[in-house]
Amino acid sequence: MTQRRVNAGERERLRIRDGAFTGPTAGLAPGHVQANLAILPRALAHDFLRFAQANPKPCPVLAVSEPGDPRLPTLGADLDIRTDVPRYRVWRNGELVAEPTDLRDVWRDDLVTFAIGCSFSFEEALIDDGIEIRHITVGSNVPMYRTNIPCVPAGVFSGPLVVSMRPMKPADAIRAVQITSRFPSVHGAPVHLGFPASIGIADIGKPDYGDPVPIGPEEMPVFWACGVTPQAVVAQVRPEFCITHAPGSMLVTDLRNTTLSAL
Amino acid sequence: MTQRRVNAGERERLRIRDGAFTGPTAGLAPGHVQANLAILPRALAHDFLRFAQANPKPCPVLAVSEPGDPRLPTLGADLDIRTDVPRYRVWRNGELVAEPTDLRDVWRDDLVTFAIGCSFSFEEALIDDGIEIRHITVGSNVPMYRTNIPCVPAGVFSGPLVVSMRPMKPADAIRAVQITSRFPSVHGAPVHLGFPASIGIADIGKPDYGDPVPIGPEEMPVFWACGVTPQAVVAQVRPEFCITHAPGSMLVTDLRNTTLSAL
Repeated sequence: MTQRRVNAGERERLRIRDGAFTGPTAGLAPGHVQANLAILPRALAHDFLRFAQANPKPCPVLAVSEPGDPRLPTLGADLDIRTDVPRYRVWRNGELVAEPTDLRDVWRDDLVTFAIGCSFSFEEALIDDGIEIRHITVGSNVPMYRTNIPCVPAGVFSGPLVVSMRPMKPADAIRAVQITSRFPSVHGAPVHLGFPASIGIADIGKPDYGDPVPIGPEEMPVFWACGVTPQAVVAQVRPEFCITHAPGSMLVTDLRNTTLSAL
Repeated sequence: MTQRRVNAGERERLRIRDGAFTGPTAGLAPGHVQANLAILPRALAHDFLRFAQANPKPCPVLAVSEPGDPRLPTLGADLDIRTDVPRYRVWRNGELVAEPTDLRDVWRDDLVTFAIGCSFSFEEALIDDGIEIRHITVGSNVPMYRTNIPCVPAGVFSGPLVVSMRPMKPADAIRAVQITSRFPSVHGAPVHLGFPASIGIADIGKPDYGDPVPIGPEEMPVFWACGVTPQAVVAQVRPEFCITHAPGSMLVTDLRNTTLSAL
């Protein structure tokens, strides 16, 4: 008898599929790409994909499903998006109506799944280089802010760029630009550093999403385009139906973070 | 009759060799690498090369001659370092004793020539990308500062890192990190941005070399390791004899700036 070898991403998905894990995915399957999730009716899917294409820094698309097909074979041969995320959010007309751990009851034949790159991948590369990630050090969520930078609109989708912020010493900020530039499919290089007010952030101590983090003397806030941007944009459209992952509860894939490196 | 095709670098060197040009070289032979020059007696050459090897950001060595040999064939087949720089500085025991346009009278059989990368190369890449270089806009010399960052000492050579400064908007600073990271042999990525005091610069308006430049609102000072570092280090040693280029009067080479790009 031979057994197929299972990678860590698939192993975690199997646990999740079996209902044995329903929590946040940070730290699961180290080295494996995790993804933000947006599932939309086919009628909105083309505009959404156009929006992502026009705004690759906040919306780096890793995979798009066939309509009605719950598989994303490029992210995992066995992957079933209806069961393989620990917790989902189901939205009707812009209202959150459920947070299930399984989508089989609400699945529709017109749903298109988008897996969108997530900053976990580049944070791993930064940590591997010895750079401290403040919100990880203090054990909170990354602070995120709506900016005054408009995304390029596409169809019904429009709205401001949302950014995540990590405070760093200047030498680490320079190194972080180098490292994250290698990862264009998970937000790439920072979009700003140093002057929050100039991108429309009035109070760095009051993020619009996530938690505030301390910024030390001679540290500067470094801002990356954030995968919350597409979620905020979808929320604004109030589609009759859509599904996202629950915050922090991502899709774990078979891909290795290192394979996303452009260099 | 056939004529050998002459590149722009060689053409400018021929003019300089003939005495037809004795000025600053900024803007000569666009696209061609220009180099800082240090010529030292053989007795000091090994320590100096070790210093450069240990401090590649301020001292990126492009070529080293054989002792007594005035040629640097990797930078130009016909290049003769005794005649091909518009103006030199000759130093004896640390004192400037002459600023000739030709070294044939002072040449010695024990002299070793070092050609060291210069920021002209990366400034061209920044300008080609649409980034404003302030000291070029205002028509002055780049401001340079001694820092509190020690170079790695080697033999008799030691001293602080000297940096050049270019003020930029944050988005340009991020782009400039990406662009200059591709040019490790001409100082590479910035060494600092944002907090001059934290690298020992008390007054950004008072550079130690060059001229001050205005810094606009929501601009930050971006600092690169500077080729003045090895000159300052050599000056401190007060060697019995040495030669440098006169400020701004560089060695023009056959190399293209683009060939220095690591990617």
